[in-house]
Amino acid sequence: TTKGLHLKKTFGKWIICLFLGVIVGCIAYVIKMVVQLLQGLKFHYTNHYVSNGLQGEAFLTFLGINLLFVFLSCLMVIVAGPLASSSGIPEVKGILNGVKVREALGFRALLGKIVSLVLSFSSGLFVGPEGPMIHIGSAVGAAISQFKSSTMGFYPSLFLSYRNDRDKRDFISIGAATGLAAAFGAPIGGVLFSIEEVSSFWSRQLTWRTFFTCVIAAFTTNFLLQGIGSSPDMHDTGLLTFGFSRLYLFRYSELLCFCFLGLIGGLLGAFFVFLNIHLNKWRKEKLKQNPYLRLFEALFVSVVTSVVCYYASFIFDCRYQSNIVIETSVCEDQSNTEMVQFFCPDGMYSELGSLLFGNPDQALRRLYSRTNNMFTLPPLLVFTLISLFFSIWSSGLWVAGGLFVPMMMVGAGFGRLFGQTISMWFTNIDSSIYALVGSAAMMAGYCRMTVCIVVIMVELTEGTQYLVPIILAVMISKWVGDFFNESVYEHLMEQKSIPFLQSKPPHSTNNIRISDVMSKNVVVLPEVCQVRLLVNILNSNNHNAFPVINSGPYDNQRLYRGIILRDHILVLLFYRVFYRGTGEEIYLDENFDFDKFTTETSKSPPPLSEMNFDQFELDSFIDLRPYMNSSGVTIHNTFSFVEAYKLFRNMGLRHLPVIDINNEVVGMVTRNDLF
Amino acid sequence: TTKGLHLKKTFGKWIICLFLGVIVGCIAYVIKMVVQLLQGLKFHYTNHYVSNGLQGEAFLTFLGINLLFVFLSCLMVIVAGPLASSSGIPEVKGILNGVKVREALGFRALLGKIVSLVLSFSSGLFVGPEGPMIHIGSAVGAAISQFKSSTMGFYPSLFLSYRNDRDKRDFISIGAATGLAAAFGAPIGGVLFSIEEVSSFWSRQLTWRTFFTCVIAAFTTNFLLQGIGSSPDMHDTGLLTFGFSRLYLFRYSELLCFCFLGLIGGLLGAFFVFLNIHLNKWRKEKLKQNPYLRLFEALFVSVVTSVVCYYASFIFDCRYQSNIVIETSVCEDQSNTEMVQFFCPDGMYSELGSLLFGNPDQALRRLYSRTNNMFTLPPLLVFTLISLFFSIWSSGLWVAGGLFVPMMMVGAGFGRLFGQTISMWFTNIDSSIYALVGSAAMMAGYCRMTVCIVVIMVELTEGTQYLVPIILAVMISKWVGDFFNESVYEHLMEQKSIPFLQSKPPHSTNNIRISDVMSKNVVVLPEVCQVRLLVNILNSNNHNAFPVINSGPYDNQRLYRGIILRDHILVLLFYRVFYRGTGEEIYLDENFDFDKFTTETSKSPPPLSEMNFDQFELDSFIDLRPYMNSSGVTIHNTFSFVEAYKLFRNMGLRHLPVIDINNEVVGMVTRNDLF
Repeated sequence: TTKGLHLKKTFGKWIICLFLGVIVGCIAYVIKMVVQLLQGLKFHYTNHYVSNGLQGEAFLTFLGINLLFVFLSCLMVIVAGPLASSSGIPEVKGILNGVKVREALGFRALLGKIVSLVLSFSSGLFVGPEGPMIHIGSAVGAAISQFKSSTMGFYPSLFLSYRNDRDKRDFISIGAATGLAAAFGAPIGGVLFSIEEVSSFWSRQLTWRTFFTCVIAAFTTNFLLQGIGSSPDMHDTGLLTFGFSRLYLFRYSELLCFCFLGLIGGLLGAFFVFLNIHLNKWRKEKLKQNPYLRLFEALFVSVVTSVVCYYASFIFDCRYQSNIVIETSVCEDQSNTEMVQFFCPDGMYSELGSLLFGNPDQALRRLYSRTNNMFTLPPLLVFTLISLFFSIWSSGLWVAGGLFVPMMMVGAGFGRLFGQTISMWFTNIDSSIYALVGSAAMMAGYCRMTVCIVVIMVELTEGTQYLVPIILAVMISKWVGDFFNESVYEHLMEQKSIPFLQSKPPHSTNNIRISDVMSKNVVVLPEVCQVRLLVNILNSNNHNAFPVINSGPYDNQRLYRGIILRDHILVLLFYRVFYRGTGEEIYLDENFDFDKFTTETSKSPPPLSEMNFDQFELDSFIDLRPYMNSSGVTIHNTFSFVEAYKLFRNMGLRHLPVIDINNEVVGMVTRNDLF
Repeated sequence: TTKGLHLKKTFGKWIICLFLGVIVGCIAYVIKMVVQLLQGLKFHYTNHYVSNGLQGEAFLTFLGINLLFVFLSCLMVIVAGPLASSSGIPEVKGILNGVKVREALGFRALLGKIVSLVLSFSSGLFVGPEGPMIHIGSAVGAAISQFKSSTMGFYPSLFLSYRNDRDKRDFISIGAATGLAAAFGAPIGGVLFSIEEVSSFWSRQLTWRTFFTCVIAAFTTNFLLQGIGSSPDMHDTGLLTFGFSRLYLFRYSELLCFCFLGLIGGLLGAFFVFLNIHLNKWRKEKLKQNPYLRLFEALFVSVVTSVVCYYASFIFDCRYQSNIVIETSVCEDQSNTEMVQFFCPDGMYSELGSLLFGNPDQALRRLYSRTNNMFTLPPLLVFTLISLFFSIWSSGLWVAGGLFVPMMMVGAGFGRLFGQTISMWFTNIDSSIYALVGSAAMMAGYCRMTVCIVVIMVELTEGTQYLVPIILAVMISKWVGDFFNESVYEHLMEQKSIPFLQSKPPHSTNNIRISDVMSKNVVVLPEVCQVRLLVNILNSNNHNAFPVINSGPYDNQRLYRGIILRDHILVLLFYRVFYRGTGEEIYLDENFDFDKFTTETSKSPPPLSEMNFDQFELDSFIDLRPYMNSSGVTIHNTFSFVEAYKLFRNMGLRHLPVIDINNEVVGMVTRNDLF
């Protein structure tokens, strides 16, 4: 039956993955639909006034709706807590590294993030939905696998067996990948994102399960978007997909230009990280967690964004729609070239309006369009600067929102600008490739991912023909960026004081011994411990784990025997697994056995303050031996810091007791000692 | 300068990666060129006789050349050792898991494999070049990073710092990925192959470095194939790439058919594994390592293959070339539809000859062609059966050769067969998609990879439009296959007695304690050890590591202090780092210090038998304390098997000393105790 149980557990995991994929896919669909609806309403009313020539009313409507959305979005964050803001990727990375970030994957953060995201993305702020989708996916992964409600005392037995650290971590990993897969419609990109960026632990089985879940999520989103039976274009998945052009044209000599784009992407990415980090530091110091200041800041940014995005378009003259020579390629999606009329007379369009006044996805599609003469250089330059400026400013506001889409816009902007510039001297330059490559370079420049970005770009453009330029640009961008600073996530984790352990210890620690950093005031428990002592010890500190010792043949020895978790002691106390004396065996709760212990420890333990013990009970003893973990890793005090670090990191430990030559406990290493 | 050293080391790694990529890319190019040349010669002479109507002479030429190639190929394996045969993937997997497979990545195996591969692939046997390319890449990775020659005493200082287990393992991982990337022209597929299949340890930095190297390799191959300045089609990389069709057509209802293909792929894959394993078992028992029998077997298979591949074509009538209605799609590569005339009159072609009598790559291209009426059903059926049969039979012969291409042929055969069959009832069935999906299903069915196969297929077909059918088929195929047996690599590793540690321990070990499996006769060394004793101990056993103990305050105690490797002791002995007595400090070699020790231990140690000690030396002592590893992981004898297994596997250990409550050494765990 061990094998039967195992099969049942494995099957259960697949079922959970299936549900996870479907749920994340549905959430992505709902977000897209609601955003479409809200943006549609906004532009409908604004355009209504614009077409009637009422510029003032039009702008006020535009501004008012934007402000309302930002206000509500920020309000959601204030209600649900700051964890609902930004992208949440640093928190997810931390959790998957073994850090406990309280409530980060809780129901409140999840719901708050979804609502806040919809509103902020609709409000015209320079934020994207992909980062938050990753957080949302992780939260769903954590929730669905840990399906329970501690307040309602509801613990379905099906999911109990997954309530261990490893399984939970795996489902969060899968969830993060699934979120990205659903957002970009890029299942392989999702898997690679999880491997390359967020996950600290990976196994072969996880690859396969993550892939399955990502595929389900991407299909679900796409299926809902397209409806059944309508079209065989089933591959056209996700929130964000771009046209696809068959006729690619680039020469070997152009590769130099793509390298240059990589250089620019790396420089701008490092610049972005630098400014963003300093801005966030300033925010942390000046605005703190004050909700009024945060709300005011978000509204202020919204006003400035709205004013700039609205009025910048007026700088440039309108152009005739008929000026655009549409590429006759079969593969060009015609809808890309439908430009925005905005304030222009009929038959004309506003260049900058087509980029700033509308849906960011549409703006991106236009930038990636193969039609070369849609834009002139000055509007492209202005667009690039505006989007860079506002991306930096918007990131870190108290609204949910990620960086992928804004960074892609910046990259597409300077890429197309560069492509169109050199096309003045050279013939046969396809500036759409430059826009694509610029986007990839910019993404690599700020988040320093590589394979993942390449795969996402391939999945978005649905072809591998741009693989070479994209790879070149991404590599150079990463190198250049790494020269200046670390990825934005590393810096954010540092700023949020998430003690993230890298896969290798820092180089400055080469000569440190573990005995120099371990905490020496270890609280140890005897194998058989009086309840009174236990309660006192639990009350007097907040350690999460206690080495269990045997006093040995000599007095005051503390020979290491095992380790026991606070939560497990609480279960023993709650069920009163007591002996009267060391000799007499009197269980106060006779129904308690090891199976019961296993079941109970997978639930949330009861708080110590709610347990009341009478004198009889306090005088009793608990035998910790059957319940302690005697397979816990220990190290000798002769260990180097580096080796202890590797052990801690590779095994995903939380506590590492240190013993000396006599097997006596002399210290304890926790994550904070290593960081 | 610690940081400077680190930077230098990192930079050195990138340089090594660059060289690795270029070298593997060049090897792939050379292999392809030589194979083209040899096959060209073979078909040139055969066709010369065929077109003159001399069927007998034609066949004898064909057979003779095939036999010559197989003979030479098998001879290479006999000279270079059996490690040069087959694909070598199980060995690489084992090495990356921490197993020591002697000589598997040595120069002899590498050279033997390259030559044998060229000959066997040209000989018309059903073997492919991709698997061996993976082995070749790993061997180059191992060689270039460990650049030295022990016979010539040549140890370049640049590479000395990479001569540790971790760096070596990383370069082998990168090499394996690079081999696949160069063979398929699929850099992303290469990275995923390394992550999903061969590597047991992975880190984020490795992703990025592997990707870089794969890209370099794929570019190098492609650059050499296309020549400079000829064409901007730079994406068209690798040994094997297929046409690309823009107009895809499949309906939701066809997904059911793709699921069916997945089912067939899984069943055939499991069937393949079953037969292949039994055949190899039979070979191991009957043919053993006898070179004559092995050579005879290879020649026999070659004769049968040649006869069948030659004469099977005569079963079917010739067809008119003009019968083929070539798709007018711009995207169809015309060369795919140039069929093989073989024995047919001018203007006609032989269907089976187009599949069996020629280059396997060409056969695959024809099977993936969008032109629907190139083949009729009976030849397709015969082709599928023949290729399945000979793939099973050829795998395991003493020639170098992999399974990817033969399995893709089988899959493409039954896929196209199925597609053309249902196209008799339904319209608008594009049987090329079925061939592609069949190939993917077949690959997933025998090697049980998922994401990697999907990505390889996407990179080969240069478009994501078939993502959905391929993913569906691959998933179903893997599930079906896993139901019957494990992947072919797992079985082969078992057969080759490679003690591979899975990422999770087997379920049957849940209740075992480590004290039940550990080896109890541990040979321990005192901290200060007489040379005489040391020499005796080293001579009397072949352990690779010895716990160093302190005898403690009580007699006969064996308190654990650290662990020292045999190789390290040999260095100490060779340099005579001796004390006269425990009190007197007389170094016999005064120039020896810890830096020297580090440098020397990264070389091959001198053999003990060549060291001669006089009585004075034998009476001296060695102080092991400065040289032992005091940061070695130990476990208590209370450990469960499962936890010890995880520790061993996750930390990539080779030796794990077991201590008891008094810190006394009571046992030792090595890989073989866990397997």
